[in-house]
Amino acid sequence: MSARPPGGITVLSGGVGGARLVDGLAGVLADPSVLTVIVNTADDWTLWGLHISPDIDTILYTLAGLASAEQGWGIAGDTWAALRMMERYGFPAWFRIGDRDLATHLARTAWLRDGRRLTDVVRSLAAALDVRPRVLPMCDEPVATVVHTAAGRLPFQEYFVARGATDPVQGIEFEGIAGAHPTPEVLEALRTASVVIVAPSNPLVSIGPILAVPGMREALVGSPALRVAVTPLVGGRAIKGPTVEMMRGLGLPADPAAVAALYRDFLDVFVLDTRDGDAAASVVSRTLQARSGPAGRTPLVACADTIMSDPAGRQRLARAVLQIAAAHGAPLPPAAAPPAAPA
Amino acid sequence: MSARPPGGITVLSGGVGGARLVDGLAGVLADPSVLTVIVNTADDWTLWGLHISPDIDTILYTLAGLASAEQGWGIAGDTWAALRMMERYGFPAWFRIGDRDLATHLARTAWLRDGRRLTDVVRSLAAALDVRPRVLPMCDEPVATVVHTAAGRLPFQEYFVARGATDPVQGIEFEGIAGAHPTPEVLEALRTASVVIVAPSNPLVSIGPILAVPGMREALVGSPALRVAVTPLVGGRAIKGPTVEMMRGLGLPADPAAVAALYRDFLDVFVLDTRDGDAAASVVSRTLQARSGPAGRTPLVACADTIMSDPAGRQRLARAVLQIAAAHGAPLPPAAAPPAAPA
Repeated sequence: MSARPPGGITVLSGGVGGARLVDGLAGVLADPSVLTVIVNTADDWTLWGLHISPDIDTILYTLAGLASAEQGWGIAGDTWAALRMMERYGFPAWFRIGDRDLATHLARTAWLRDGRRLTDVVRSLAAALDVRPRVLPMCDEPVATVVHTAAGRLPFQEYFVARGATDPVQGIEFEGIAGAHPTPEVLEALRTASVVIVAPSNPLVSIGPILAVPGMREALVGSPALRVAVTPLVGGRAIKGPTVEMMRGLGLPADPAAVAALYRDFLDVFVLDTRDGDAAASVVSRTLQARSGPAGRTPLVACADTIMSDPAGRQRLARAVLQIAAAHGAPLPPAAAPPAAPA
Repeated sequence: MSARPPGGITVLSGGVGGARLVDGLAGVLADPSVLTVIVNTADDWTLWGLHISPDIDTILYTLAGLASAEQGWGIAGDTWAALRMMERYGFPAWFRIGDRDLATHLARTAWLRDGRRLTDVVRSLAAALDVRPRVLPMCDEPVATVVHTAAGRLPFQEYFVARGATDPVQGIEFEGIAGAHPTPEVLEALRTASVVIVAPSNPLVSIGPILAVPGMREALVGSPALRVAVTPLVGGRAIKGPTVEMMRGLGLPADPAAVAALYRDFLDVFVLDTRDGDAAASVVSRTLQARSGPAGRTPLVACADTIMSDPAGRQRLARAVLQIAAAHGAPLPPAAAPPAAPA
């Protein structure tokens, strides 16, 4: 692997957890433009006639320093004048769009109506927000996560926001996925990366749709990069979101080994949380070794403090992941600051 | 005329001036729901993918007590968070949409996309804003005022807002007008009114498009109502807007007689401002008498204080117009409070 030329760092990401890791990486890299984020768009939906991309926006707002840490979505300090007026007009207000956030949806919708690709639209939004890492939708085609529950087939935002992710999940479906393609930009970001990082996002509804785009897993298997996944589960729980409940609903054990198994066809290293200690590490190792990875490599297990409760925590995990990647022979981008030891 | 059963009061109106008179009428009538406003929609246009109806909204916001008196458009105390963000995304911001105002455009656009008629959409907006007079678009079809200038054919909002109505006007065109129809609601409001009032709005680009809807003048000529127009010009000037400049640009004298002549085929009474005195009244009388009105009536001239600089002024003019109508034999709606003498 040492002969491999240094390339970029490409992250597969959903919303909040991924956004924090990407923000940490952007903070520790001397040149954040070596960073590319491939983002889930199966949460996208249409409200008030507007195309809304929740995960893309969480990534953009986080990298722009605009994200609301309290809410986990939207823009810090945003106002609610339009939303209150929409309520007065009888529109449901459970999906809370702030006034500044609304402009993002208006701009995206207007540009898409002009016939632009979502990829190009996101590039324009990112440029306006001075976001230096490249933010890429997983595909330009519409894909929609539908959650099967006892209450019926629920659009993702209805399951997640309106009903608070309380319905036991019986199945997950990505409508439109068969017609989706990784964009040329996505394929290039996988082909030219030194390190591909799967963020600690929900493996079923954030990373799952990305991997379900036809051709995406093949591109990951064929990528020359070292492929590292960070666990979204610590101590048997997800930092945020219904990962555990969803995994159980689908009959999966809700543990890091089961997450790692979802990635095992392309994975090189799975990063566990140090809190889960050696016992979890050996379970994950056995699970991964039960089916060896591509090119004869057997996925390995590493540990790091994966909890990102503040900006320092984001950069600590970013450095740790880069250090793990370097320790496994990945040439880091020349612009990368030398990773310091995790604090 | 005394045998005519009392009906409603129907006003033809553009934006600010008409809104003030309608607001005054709503204030002096015991039951404001006898009032119907037929509003110009040729100023409507599309921005950010949203259907915007400036005159409708000025009427709605004024009657809801939400209008910004300082601006002459939009909602008092509205905020600009979305607009500032749209500017950051590179969208032109010369048409200033406030955050609450934005919700009106979002709701209207969403409802129109659902296939509803503009008439029904405006009814829903009015109901949500507790507006009791009936507010009717002049038609449900899209009509667009285009102003011909040395700088080319300008969409009305570009001429009016972006360029500040500074281009000499060479012609006015209502795109789409040939395919427009007065709605059943509009025809009914003209057929059942005791009094039709032409508001002191711009005769060319506010009242003009209403009268240009095929069938509208015929409905006015055939209406059993007493038809009263209030001058938009006082002392040779318009209270607001480029009426004088536009009339001159089209080769018309910019005086009340020329305005009255535009309405002479259906008009019963033209209300001049008292400030213009007897000289103007006799010019207007001569102009109107040169061509007598329908049903053998010769349009007459009356005077009132037409300047509505505050809410009391609005009600003063409303009472004066009702008094003039009563003096000319129009049966006022039973719900109307007895008009007091103008203050």
